[in-house]
Amino acid sequence: MVPVFSHLAWFDIADPESQELDQLARRFKLHELQIEDCRHRPQRPKTEEHDHYIFTVLKHIHDRDELEFDDIDLFLGRDFLISVRCADAAVIETVRARAGQEKVDRLDRLFYMIVDEIVDGYQPVLDKIADDISEIEDVVLDKPDPPTLARIFSLRRKLIDFRRVAGGMREVVDSLIRRENGLVGDDLDPYFRDIYDHIIRTVDLIETYRDLLSGALDIYLSAVANRTNEVMKVLTIWGTVTLPLVIITGFFGMNLHLPWTDSPYGIDYAVALMAISTIAVLVYFKMRRWF
Amino acid sequence: MVPVFSHLAWFDIADPESQELDQLARRFKLHELQIEDCRHRPQRPKTEEHDHYIFTVLKHIHDRDELEFDDIDLFLGRDFLISVRCADAAVIETVRARAGQEKVDRLDRLFYMIVDEIVDGYQPVLDKIADDISEIEDVVLDKPDPPTLARIFSLRRKLIDFRRVAGGMREVVDSLIRRENGLVGDDLDPYFRDIYDHIIRTVDLIETYRDLLSGALDIYLSAVANRTNEVMKVLTIWGTVTLPLVIITGFFGMNLHLPWTDSPYGIDYAVALMAISTIAVLVYFKMRRWF
Amino acid sequence: MVPVFSHLAWFDIADPESQELDQLARRFKLHELQIEDCRHRPQRPKTEEHDHYIFTVLKHIHDRDELEFDDIDLFLGRDFLISVRCADAAVIETVRARAGQEKVDRLDRLFYMIVDEIVDGYQPVLDKIADDISEIEDVVLDKPDPPTLARIFSLRRKLIDFRRVAGGMREVVDSLIRRENGLVGDDLDPYFRDIYDHIIRTVDLIETYRDLLSGALDIYLSAVANRTNEVMKVLTIWGTVTLPLVIITGFFGMNLHLPWTDSPYGIDYAVALMAISTIAVLVYFKMRRWF
Amino acid sequence: MVPVFSHLAWFDIADPESQELDQLARRFKLHELQIEDCRHRPQRPKTEEHDHYIFTVLKHIHDRDELEFDDIDLFLGRDFLISVRCADAAVIETVRARAGQEKVDRLDRLFYMIVDEIVDGYQPVLDKIADDISEIEDVVLDKPDPPTLARIFSLRRKLIDFRRVAGGMREVVDSLIRRENGLVGDDLDPYFRDIYDHIIRTVDLIETYRDLLSGALDIYLSAVANRTNEVMKVLTIWGTVTLPLVIITGFFGMNLHLPWTDSPYGIDYAVALMAISTIAVLVYFKMRRWF
Amino acid sequence: MVPVFSHLAWFDIADPESQELDQLARRFKLHELQIEDCRHRPQRPKTEEHDHYIFTVLKHIHDRDELEFDDIDLFLGRDFLISVRCADAAVIETVRARAGQEKVDRLDRLFYMIVDEIVDGYQPVLDKIADDISEIEDVVLDKPDPPTLARIFSLRRKLIDFRRVAGGMREVVDSLIRRENGLVGDDLDPYFRDIYDHIIRTVDLIETYRDLLSGALDIYLSAVANRTNEVMKVLTIWGTVTLPLVIITGFFGMNLHLPWTDSPYGIDYAVALMAISTIAVLVYFKMRRWF
Repeated sequence: MVPVFSHLAWFDIADPESQELDQLARRFKLHELQIEDCRHRPQRPKTEEHDHYIFTVLKHIHDRDELEFDDIDLFLGRDFLISVRCADAAVIETVRARAGQEKVDRLDRLFYMIVDEIVDGYQPVLDKIADDISEIEDVVLDKPDPPTLARIFSLRRKLIDFRRVAGGMREVVDSLIRRENGLVGDDLDPYFRDIYDHIIRTVDLIETYRDLLSGALDIYLSAVANRTNEVMKVLTIWGTVTLPLVIITGFFGMNLHLPWTDSPYGIDYAVALMAISTIAVLVYFKMRRWF
Repeated sequence: MVPVFSHLAWFDIADPESQELDQLARRFKLHELQIEDCRHRPQRPKTEEHDHYIFTVLKHIHDRDELEFDDIDLFLGRDFLISVRCADAAVIETVRARAGQEKVDRLDRLFYMIVDEIVDGYQPVLDKIADDISEIEDVVLDKPDPPTLARIFSLRRKLIDFRRVAGGMREVVDSLIRRENGLVGDDLDPYFRDIYDHIIRTVDLIETYRDLLSGALDIYLSAVANRTNEVMKVLTIWGTVTLPLVIITGFFGMNLHLPWTDSPYGIDYAVALMAISTIAVLVYFKMRRWF
Repeated sequence: MVPVFSHLAWFDIADPESQELDQLARRFKLHELQIEDCRHRPQRPKTEEHDHYIFTVLKHIHDRDELEFDDIDLFLGRDFLISVRCADAAVIETVRARAGQEKVDRLDRLFYMIVDEIVDGYQPVLDKIADDISEIEDVVLDKPDPPTLARIFSLRRKLIDFRRVAGGMREVVDSLIRRENGLVGDDLDPYFRDIYDHIIRTVDLIETYRDLLSGALDIYLSAVANRTNEVMKVLTIWGTVTLPLVIITGFFGMNLHLPWTDSPYGIDYAVALMAISTIAVLVYFKMRRWF
Repeated sequence: MVPVFSHLAWFDIADPESQELDQLARRFKLHELQIEDCRHRPQRPKTEEHDHYIFTVLKHIHDRDELEFDDIDLFLGRDFLISVRCADAAVIETVRARAGQEKVDRLDRLFYMIVDEIVDGYQPVLDKIADDISEIEDVVLDKPDPPTLARIFSLRRKLIDFRRVAGGMREVVDSLIRRENGLVGDDLDPYFRDIYDHIIRTVDLIETYRDLLSGALDIYLSAVANRTNEVMKVLTIWGTVTLPLVIITGFFGMNLHLPWTDSPYGIDYAVALMAISTIAVLVYFKMRRWF
Repeated sequence: MVPVFSHLAWFDIADPESQELDQLARRFKLHELQIEDCRHRPQRPKTEEHDHYIFTVLKHIHDRDELEFDDIDLFLGRDFLISVRCADAAVIETVRARAGQEKVDRLDRLFYMIVDEIVDGYQPVLDKIADDISEIEDVVLDKPDPPTLARIFSLRRKLIDFRRVAGGMREVVDSLIRRENGLVGDDLDPYFRDIYDHIIRTVDLIETYRDLLSGALDIYLSAVANRTNEVMKVLTIWGTVTLPLVIITGFFGMNLHLPWTDSPYGIDYAVALMAISTIAVLVYFKMRRWF
């Protein structure tokens, strides 16, 4: 199999099922369970150190909108780097281009660049989530309707996934910093620590977003409770104002010997009575501060 | 007692109460408390190391639909492997068949195969739970009724159990990896780590499912609150529209000297009044954005 | 003071205030603070190691129904065992009987038997709580009334207490396993580990029960919310169906020049109008899927 | 400055701003930051070891009803003990009296007595809180009104403060037990462990009380939800019973050619109709188990 | 570039993008990733030790009202101190003035003063938050309206941010205390511990405030639930009182052969009937303790 660059033994496999992976596994003595891991996706992010190579499973963002992750598997030996991934991994293309430009001539630096690129890919997604949450927060207090609720829960679900992935990635990068077998040069230490800082920040932000989102749900629920309360008040005030009028008109509609029936001012008295009852009720609610 | 294979001292006991277990206990000097553990089910998953053997209690899924677990007890010595379990443990049958096919000739490998098979058995259950949750999430926002609620809580209960079992199994496999007495060959290390990865993933997923399920409950509650709000609005709007009409009709039903009673257009005036009051109320609600 | 058995220096004190405790304290050089601990009940479960003896405070279940705990204090020296407890501790009686039957002739074994008996006493209580929760869960979805609520909270309160006791006992048994002063024979190690397993299981179950109970509370609240929603729907449908009829009857009750008053079919027209309005409202609710 | 007892160098400063503190600081070489800590109150509980003295900030309960805490600062050197506190610290007076009676002649024992007295002072407050919670629990299910709610939240706020103080004190006593500079005699070890037990118990109880209080809030909310449900039911049953009667009376009030108007039994038919409709509605609710 | 004081190599850069930072980086051999950190803001608080210098990212409060934080980056070497910050950092100005007055002549002391000033800057913000929460708590039980809700959530959001910053700062100061490379004199140890105490207190208070705020939200929700309950009661009592009167007046409005129509006392009987029904309903509610 032909490496990506003529002067560097980086083998990039875009189809985990291909025969080439088996050939490389035989050639570089890779463990069968890890080859299986490359083929049975998805795996959890992890890193495994052997005498002559490191194996890592990383998670890059495959679909930004749906927040879907996909595995990138790396085998880093003293004289080889193998990346296994599905066909459409923009991350690998970006690294290939950058490495060509920067004339990278070390395998461990290439390895670093791939990890860095993957973690950098989380940032735009975090920004998008932050925007979404701001938007939800603006909407939710003013107009708490079911679509907003559905949006809160869909975002929440994504954050649960993202949290799991980022937590796993943090452990992986932490192990890479503590590595001991000398496959990665010590001069790359600050760079891996830099990646580590990025992931810690990512995990922090995800936690913050989850807090904010659960706050948004609380706002939703309290806004709905508030609205129900408002609606009830309108109904109660209205019912309390109108029912006496219904009784008064009913009273004078009875086929009994009523007062005022013969007086031409009867109707005026009745209207006055109705006005007084209405005013009394309104004054009562005013005193209870319902307006 | 006769071992499962002629060339390998694997003794499989399908009835924990049988005399054979006592015979084996005497022959291989097993601790009495552990024989008791085999008989008093259920136990927590655990592993105990002795000088000449390891004792482990494992949990396999006995009933997938109800998510019931059952104990499988293993004693692994240098020259014997004893499995104790209830009559219907498909896991043991599967391992027996696979071991026959693959011509396994080491007791520690057999031991590994049983643990692996048990943990593999969790996957289909996890998949089923994931499906159930997706289904619940689809239903709950649209139609929050008590049966859905009952389903959420039944699933929640199962997850609490599963979480406890998986947590215990994780500790067991972790101890097996850190074992020190040399009863299990070092070449099996990556294989046990592979099982460990599976369990970690299982525990992770259970946590995720619990999160999603508690999200589904929140959706349920907010959907019910929302519905109550909707229902209240309908009642309030309706009451507010109709009550003035009741008053107007009541007014002209009074047996007093009313205006318009002699005019042939009286009824038209009254209907106009009713139409105006209705429109006024509707305009009011429109302005408050209740539609 | 006379020991329980003639051949074994086990002193059992059924009244912590008695002078005998002071005599024993002087004779075996027990620390004054621990004698105070015996007398100021309740204490937290704890274990304290001295050069020549171990002091432990244990919690046995004194009242199963109310889940009340009481202290049993043990002093284990090389040549003495002192148990201090209130008059009615069935645990001590049971151990006395068993030790007599089994002809126990070691103080550390007696010590173990008391701890074991105390922890075994938790099991029937756990079973009763499990039954209670099952019963509550059955009732709560169907008929969420205040007595059920009171029951949930009373059980919850008990579990909080039990959790605290069991957590303390776990630490005590853990310290006993890690003991270093040789007062307890090493051959008892598996037996103490067995007790430890029991307590871990107890703590696990208590946590599970708390989860289930908080689930039951959630069911309660959602069932009440659901009922309120149902009640509101009935009222709204009913009000929406009847109010138009009230208006129609009111309309034709007005003392104005009405249509149809002279026609003998007037009443039929009016009834038809009422039927149409009723059907229209019902169709509307059917379309909104309120039935 | 004159010490409290003639034979013991205990200096008690009742006004942190006084010059005497500066004089003592110069004389015993106390660190300026700690003198500042004495003057800028409140500080967190803490302990700082120096070569020649220990500095601790402790929290005693200053106002039992409002649960207000105040700082007591102690400097313990080989040949001096300095206590700094505000004017009204009953704790110090109690220790002074007890030390005089018991003829205490060691500074480290005095130091112990002050710490012990402070921690003992928490007990009556814990008892009062327990009583308050019992009272709230009794009231809340039966009569959930806003004053009870306000009481729950005021108690909750106090517990949050108490938890923080007790947590800090636990750390302080823990450090005192692990002290290494020999300023406190080893024979006081069991006594400090006794204090430690008290604080652990205090922290435990505070956690329990917080749990109980959050339970009381849940009861409150569910009781209110229940009441709303009850109120709604009454309204709904009532509305459903009366509205048909309103329609029937309205029907026979129409100025159209009605049936039964000429029959002397018309009124009986109408009343029968009203009775039937009422019974039908009540039967319907009985069947739905609303009573 | 010219240092801030003629006798001390403190370089203060008010524009992270400036060329001067690159010059200093070259001159003092600063790591390129850290220069990048200075320019890509915001970073998490952190500290990184090198052989010849320490690099720290600190967070000062840039806008008190909106609680916005900004980075201050410090490089402390044996013979240089570089601070990088945005143009308007009052903290730096304050330190410059104080250092001039106090004639500070050590770089590590300057370094300490900047960290101290930054952490001191948190106190007024904490006080303001405490005031805000007290105000909210006063308002929320009495008048739970949406603006109060919005205020709760806005404050909550700020506290989430503040918590993250303070947590990071705590780790930074903790690392500074554990530093080992001798760039900061040991005599500054108590001072850094003093800062540490301040931050711990800050983190504690933030947690307390979050607890109080979530309590305020609970009060809000329970107050709204309570109000809805009150409103419902008014409506129910009113409806229950008036509907019988509507039925009675309707009854006597029927055009049938009614009783009492010819009697001059008919109207008195009817009014008596109405009074009795009203009293009966009020007595019923009194008995159910609805007033």
